[in-house]
Amino acid sequence: MTDRVPEFTALAHELADTAGDVIRRYFRVPVPVDIKPDKSPVTLADRDAETAIRERIAAHHPDHGVIGEEFGADRPDAEWVWIIDPIDGTAGFMTGEPVFGTLIALAHRGKPVVGIIDQPISRERWLGIAGQPTTLNGETITARPCTDLDLATLYTTAPEWFTGADQDRYQALKNQVRLFRYGADCYAFGLLAAGFVDLVVEAGMNVYDYFALIPVIEGAGGVMTDWQGRALTMESDGKVVAAGDKSLHNKALAIINAP
Amino acid sequence: MTDRVPEFTALAHELADTAGDVIRRYFRVPVPVDIKPDKSPVTLADRDAETAIRERIAAHHPDHGVIGEEFGADRPDAEWVWIIDPIDGTAGFMTGEPVFGTLIALAHRGKPVVGIIDQPISRERWLGIAGQPTTLNGETITARPCTDLDLATLYTTAPEWFTGADQDRYQALKNQVRLFRYGADCYAFGLLAAGFVDLVVEAGMNVYDYFALIPVIEGAGGVMTDWQGRALTMESDGKVVAAGDKSLHNKALAIINAP
Repeated sequence: MTDRVPEFTALAHELADTAGDVIRRYFRVPVPVDIKPDKSPVTLADRDAETAIRERIAAHHPDHGVIGEEFGADRPDAEWVWIIDPIDGTAGFMTGEPVFGTLIALAHRGKPVVGIIDQPISRERWLGIAGQPTTLNGETITARPCTDLDLATLYTTAPEWFTGADQDRYQALKNQVRLFRYGADCYAFGLLAAGFVDLVVEAGMNVYDYFALIPVIEGAGGVMTDWQGRALTMESDGKVVAAGDKSLHNKALAIINAP
Repeated sequence: MTDRVPEFTALAHELADTAGDVIRRYFRVPVPVDIKPDKSPVTLADRDAETAIRERIAAHHPDHGVIGEEFGADRPDAEWVWIIDPIDGTAGFMTGEPVFGTLIALAHRGKPVVGIIDQPISRERWLGIAGQPTTLNGETITARPCTDLDLATLYTTAPEWFTGADQDRYQALKNQVRLFRYGADCYAFGLLAAGFVDLVVEAGMNVYDYFALIPVIEGAGGVMTDWQGRALTMESDGKVVAAGDKSLHNKALAIINAP
């Protein structure tokens, strides 16, 4: 399978380019917004970018599966499945804040082998490939060491994503770190891979929100699991802990899972 | 006094240029961080940028006052006082997230007459001058109409800034709006002035956090007051409500101050 990875990585770049062209046309232009049943917003830009991505995949590999945020799953049991979120952080996109991203993952028999985080306004692109070093615009990046929670910087998109007892678990972790910050969606994971953030904790994610992030984080030397420390799969529950440092990851899990 | 404004506006640009040169050198470079008594972080970049700004002011106008986040107040009773925050959103800066800003305000007898929000990485500069239209990189911008809370987008930096009863007041407002988002510090006010955000509510601000924002918001047709709807002064309590639309501002105040 690995002999196909360079070819498919080239396609992943093409998909990110395609989405970026669409998104840049809509950025900071008033666009109609719908609020979906899960209360998340969606715009014409999300839909047009996902349509453009799906057309490119179909043109190259009509046998590949596609799972996307806006148009659901086609052939999800195929050997190769693209898992895409055209705009992760739609609230940021809608408000003109350039910390959203296009997420493109390629799964082979359910395992993530390629992941891209693309920020089309600042033109930053993170590329993770299973077993290879992560790059940002072609330069190798690494997560930074940080073994102590009281020296760590933690990102999460919004505390409202944590419900029930998870709210207390998140607060307990937040109370241990040196610095916390909200807002950045997938961009926070890119900053972690680049060595500027130590922890990202989220809940309520869907497979298209987290799958592309896995090769990016792992290829930078970081760790990304569910809240129990298990490897993420396409069926995970959407609660994620990413850390740049393995020992910090363990300490974060211990706080989150404290009785 | 107004005949001096063009000259002082040119200096404000020079100060923003100077700070930007310093900040770009430190961005995404590991820099030592101190945590101040109020738990906010400060880096060498903050201190060097403020020092550079103060040197430029002293070189041009040694009689002017300066109030800065990092080095306090010099001649705060002068006729003209510069009120500066070299990096508003230091947590964003430290983590490589380009939504912090340099804030430069000029007060004449306590009233804000010039305000700049400068984002030195994306090279976006908002300029507000009392009585004139606000510009973003030289182009006139206007806040957008939005009369209903249930169509409004609300930003705040972090809910942790609200303490005591203010937490409930903020939550009540948040529950009325269509979309809320965290994180962007001064950048959120810039997005409001540019017509992409409807409300920004903050607490715990200092004069150097909000003074530069006033001419930017007002010159774009927006409204910015304290939580009681009073004009902001150098002695305000640090609780701020900005809105792009006057009627929305009234509705937000009504929710925040509901008995």
